[in-house]
Amino acid sequence: MPETNRPLVISAPAPRTLELIFSRKALDELNRRYRLIEADPENIASLGDATLAEVRYVIGQPPLDEATLARMPRLRAILNVESNLLDNMPYEVLFRRGIHVVTTGQVFAEPVAELGLAMALNLARGIVDADLAFREGRELWGGEGNRSARLLSGSEIGIIGFGDLGKALNRVLSGFRARIRVYDPWLPGSILTEAGVEPASIETVLSSSDFVFVVAAVTSENEGFLGAEAFSKMRHGAAFILLSRAGVVDFDALIAAVEAGRIVAASDVFPEEPLPLDHPVRRLPGFLRSAHRAGALDPAFKKMGKMVLEDMELMDRNLPPMRCKRAERETVARMRSRPVSVN
Amino acid sequence: MPETNRPLVISAPAPRTLELIFSRKALDELNRRYRLIEADPENIASLGDATLAEVRYVIGQPPLDEATLARMPRLRAILNVESNLLDNMPYEVLFRRGIHVVTTGQVFAEPVAELGLAMALNLARGIVDADLAFREGRELWGGEGNRSARLLSGSEIGIIGFGDLGKALNRVLSGFRARIRVYDPWLPGSILTEAGVEPASIETVLSSSDFVFVVAAVTSENEGFLGAEAFSKMRHGAAFILLSRAGVVDFDALIAAVEAGRIVAASDVFPEEPLPLDHPVRRLPGFLRSAHRAGALDPAFKKMGKMVLEDMELMDRNLPPMRCKRAERETVARMRSRPVSVN
Amino acid sequence: MPETNRPLVISAPAPRTLELIFSRKALDELNRRYRLIEADPENIASLGDATLAEVRYVIGQPPLDEATLARMPRLRAILNVESNLLDNMPYEVLFRRGIHVVTTGQVFAEPVAELGLAMALNLARGIVDADLAFREGRELWGGEGNRSARLLSGSEIGIIGFGDLGKALNRVLSGFRARIRVYDPWLPGSILTEAGVEPASIETVLSSSDFVFVVAAVTSENEGFLGAEAFSKMRHGAAFILLSRAGVVDFDALIAAVEAGRIVAASDVFPEEPLPLDHPVRRLPGFLRSAHRAGALDPAFKKMGKMVLEDMELMDRNLPPMRCKRAERETVARMRSRPVSVN
Amino acid sequence: MPETNRPLVISAPAPRTLELIFSRKALDELNRRYRLIEADPENIASLGDATLAEVRYVIGQPPLDEATLARMPRLRAILNVESNLLDNMPYEVLFRRGIHVVTTGQVFAEPVAELGLAMALNLARGIVDADLAFREGRELWGGEGNRSARLLSGSEIGIIGFGDLGKALNRVLSGFRARIRVYDPWLPGSILTEAGVEPASIETVLSSSDFVFVVAAVTSENEGFLGAEAFSKMRHGAAFILLSRAGVVDFDALIAAVEAGRIVAASDVFPEEPLPLDHPVRRLPGFLRSAHRAGALDPAFKKMGKMVLEDMELMDRNLPPMRCKRAERETVARMRSRPVSVN
Repeated sequence: MPETNRPLVISAPAPRTLELIFSRKALDELNRRYRLIEADPENIASLGDATLAEVRYVIGQPPLDEATLARMPRLRAILNVESNLLDNMPYEVLFRRGIHVVTTGQVFAEPVAELGLAMALNLARGIVDADLAFREGRELWGGEGNRSARLLSGSEIGIIGFGDLGKALNRVLSGFRARIRVYDPWLPGSILTEAGVEPASIETVLSSSDFVFVVAAVTSENEGFLGAEAFSKMRHGAAFILLSRAGVVDFDALIAAVEAGRIVAASDVFPEEPLPLDHPVRRLPGFLRSAHRAGALDPAFKKMGKMVLEDMELMDRNLPPMRCKRAERETVARMRSRPVSVN
Repeated sequence: MPETNRPLVISAPAPRTLELIFSRKALDELNRRYRLIEADPENIASLGDATLAEVRYVIGQPPLDEATLARMPRLRAILNVESNLLDNMPYEVLFRRGIHVVTTGQVFAEPVAELGLAMALNLARGIVDADLAFREGRELWGGEGNRSARLLSGSEIGIIGFGDLGKALNRVLSGFRARIRVYDPWLPGSILTEAGVEPASIETVLSSSDFVFVVAAVTSENEGFLGAEAFSKMRHGAAFILLSRAGVVDFDALIAAVEAGRIVAASDVFPEEPLPLDHPVRRLPGFLRSAHRAGALDPAFKKMGKMVLEDMELMDRNLPPMRCKRAERETVARMRSRPVSVN
Repeated sequence: MPETNRPLVISAPAPRTLELIFSRKALDELNRRYRLIEADPENIASLGDATLAEVRYVIGQPPLDEATLARMPRLRAILNVESNLLDNMPYEVLFRRGIHVVTTGQVFAEPVAELGLAMALNLARGIVDADLAFREGRELWGGEGNRSARLLSGSEIGIIGFGDLGKALNRVLSGFRARIRVYDPWLPGSILTEAGVEPASIETVLSSSDFVFVVAAVTSENEGFLGAEAFSKMRHGAAFILLSRAGVVDFDALIAAVEAGRIVAASDVFPEEPLPLDHPVRRLPGFLRSAHRAGALDPAFKKMGKMVLEDMELMDRNLPPMRCKRAERETVARMRSRPVSVN
Repeated sequence: MPETNRPLVISAPAPRTLELIFSRKALDELNRRYRLIEADPENIASLGDATLAEVRYVIGQPPLDEATLARMPRLRAILNVESNLLDNMPYEVLFRRGIHVVTTGQVFAEPVAELGLAMALNLARGIVDADLAFREGRELWGGEGNRSARLLSGSEIGIIGFGDLGKALNRVLSGFRARIRVYDPWLPGSILTEAGVEPASIETVLSSSDFVFVVAAVTSENEGFLGAEAFSKMRHGAAFILLSRAGVVDFDALIAAVEAGRIVAASDVFPEEPLPLDHPVRRLPGFLRSAHRAGALDPAFKKMGKMVLEDMELMDRNLPPMRCKRAERETVARMRSRPVSVN
């Protein structure tokens, strides 16, 4: 394509990099199809009017004020390559103008779901402690070692939150013939039913599950909503697996419930990351730890670039983006998020 | 049912017990439907002719010689509640007379498949070492900790052996959109195709898989068939997961391949059980250990009793058993097995 | 709820009726939760300012001009209970204001998919003509009657359009182990791949399928795009099944292709409805006819009401509608539709 | 392979032919691997002792008496390429000697299931009569034509008999989110549960289903077991679809139930085949007729040959046949069957 015909794209994926999210092949395609401007995310406004006037897409979520956006009349979409939406641009203006704001967080759904399933199986079978015991020559053989072991197959499973992550979890659980109940106040029951799961109240999910997976995003409304009362409703010995954000859980209450032997738990997220070296959860028996590693796999990052290319191709043809997730006018302000500091 | 009408059953489940394999409810049903004789497994012949003449079923696999069997004209089935077939009765005589010999090993398929999947996910994500590091304050966060992490989703998976275990594995893998190849020389390819997997040679399974699951029984023909040559064909960094019997593997070669960093591995079975305290596999990095705990869960044992009751009910109506697995005239002699010493 | 607190809803579902789309139970719920104004669809503007100021939802798609909309500051959504979007309101204004325009056409997906599958099976097995022959005593028995019969199982299937209808078709085809290719220019390939179908060009879909299902909506760009050239690319004897709108097909060319014996076909939609009594397709052999009956089943209509209630419940809580389909700024103008005249 | 090493096979597939059941490629393979003797089925005994002594397999089910079998010491299997087992050989002798008797009827499962589903959809949507009306210019459009139409999706379905046919039906129904109950007295309930269907009594299946599929074989015990009483238990307007053998049904009672408007029905099998020209079922409204065409498709026949080759390959290696279905000592005598007269 001649230089002048290629649409203009502002590249501002920090803290990520184009190399992280595009494979070499995808990066070639990106460059072949678009003119890229690697801009200082903190200073988009400093780009000249002639440049801004041509911009069709922004990759990343740099701060943008209304005045700068007004200088970008051809802007079609902000392609946010983090999972969070920062409060650094006037979303209402974007929605009004019909500029799409899309996120690519669903790339993490598959790796997070796999880790979540692994955590559930680990808790059910005591795999970590059994391997440690084996290393140290104190392993128990056969049924002796299975006193508290149990199966996912045929169990009752609860999922809190049924976005991309919940759906991916449901998929990796599909071979287990389990009864799966879901609590998601943002979705109508019939959508859950069609997905093959049972809509349920948060109470039922907590009190009727052998395994509870938490994959709900933190919103302004649900911070810390899973606390002492929630854990007290759970079945004795049930497993609590936290995969989304530490903010939805009262972590001290979670630790207390595990310490008391009421439940077992696993978490990929923590109230502080990195966690202080003396934090009690570090050596808490009945607790499986993962250092925010659930999603951050290279194939997931590379999928981001692929999704961005696919949606830009649709928007180039004046079609709506169908691959990434669109921010919603109603909920954008409810998403309480912090910048990603580590990829 | 009046005492005299209830069919007679010899109970000789040792080394297992009726209590292990029957729930209380199932045991009640067993007693309601049948007259049970708890016999000394080593001395079935000592039972009187009048008794033996009435026996319809034997639960267990006590030694039985042709003469004793001749005294049991109404015998319909031996319901073996182990997974192995011992060489302690004249199977040819049983087959000729149309006496079914059935095994209940398929109860272990589901728990073994779950552990196998857990092992694969553990190897893929380094879960045990990550938790240990976390306990010790040297965990790596986010992408830093995922340098060698990978996904099952979209991977290539090989399964060696497609009996009940292989089928259960295929089921728990069904949500992963993986390409699954199977090597099983005892099954026609079209059966594998209908099960949604690809029939493949052992070479292809080894060389084209990211994860290789071994669920083949030991036979007189395949002892140690997975050795240095096999491991050398595997993809660099691929995972080898051994779930059936240590006998199919050259364990020293397996250890060498893991030690050399060529592959990673997990095993539930070992050449000696218990394993000597100084065995090198105990502290081998890249190796996940489980002390023959894959199948021996209480719900699996209780399922045995249920299966036995279901098949006896069919045979009481002169129908063939459909629930347990029947020993086959052609293969019974090939199964090289040892008594179960631990449940 | 006290009268004054119940949100106000304008009911203008013509040509449908509330009774058609709401079960008695759902209608009770509608009335319990909302104050309903049954308005003359042609004269919404005549409602008083005080009334319009309170309106939260409009059920139906009455003509609405910008001035009237300006008098409705609390309007959150137009819940269109037809499948088509008429050009009778300023959609740009609605989008700018963030007022959702949603459609309920997906209720027809399931009944249409079932009829589509039935048509394919009918064409594959010649069921109509076989029954007629049987009535008249000239039936052919067994293999004699199956000279041109074939299976869906294991066949190659093409689907043109992968909206709700295409997805429902894919679902009812899931038990057939068929290879399914999809052409949909509005969707990125990776979404099709994740749905378990293969993205393909229109040429490949036409030339490599034993059964071609057309479920694409008519747009300003695809009118009559399936004509003589398309049919000439199809496999000899393949089946062409038209389920969406007659407008996407050059009907004369379709008739010619069937008449020539090149393909067989079935259609639920026709260039004129009702069709003239002397239209040649009425007695065309190799053609199966259905008088626009694919979707219009009572359970489908009743599902509309349920969907409307579910989405209003979400929007009452200031959440986005998730059940109905939202009109898109980019595509609303491309949908060329006519009013529904018959339910 | 040198002539003398190829195992000997007696070919006696009448009334079928090798050409019907083997593709050209499969026939080549058959000839390459085996020496074939095309024998007069009525006179196998006339073959010389030297020949009979070498026979490893018989393809077909020619009459065989004990004396002739005694002259065939190397016989491993009778591969019956019909669906029925005739009472023309001493099965007890075969079982005693461990000679497998296998049938290939499962090749018909897929085509029969497809026709069964087509029949259900036809009855649900009135497709045949709608097409006839359309031909004659008296069709009803849209909802008008759907007064008695209904969906399979979400319906309650009963299946009587869960052999290969029932399983294939369950598979093609898998995309319909229906509740499926199964009555099969020869199978334990847990096998049905694992297959994803609900075990149920015959009464429940009849009284709680919108669609009842009959795929049970005729046995000495179930002849005519579905009669007036059974039909009186069915839901008003429910559909009865007969796919296996007319013998399990009291056909006059079936006709009466349809005539009275209590149920609708479809059948592929009839008490006499061909059926007299004046039989009342020929013009019975509410009844869909198929002249024993459900299974007899060329791809099904060709699959037979493939199955025979696969199982002979296993048996050549002294493994049990796994592809075809084995006759069972307990049930062989219960199967009341007649010779196939038409393919």
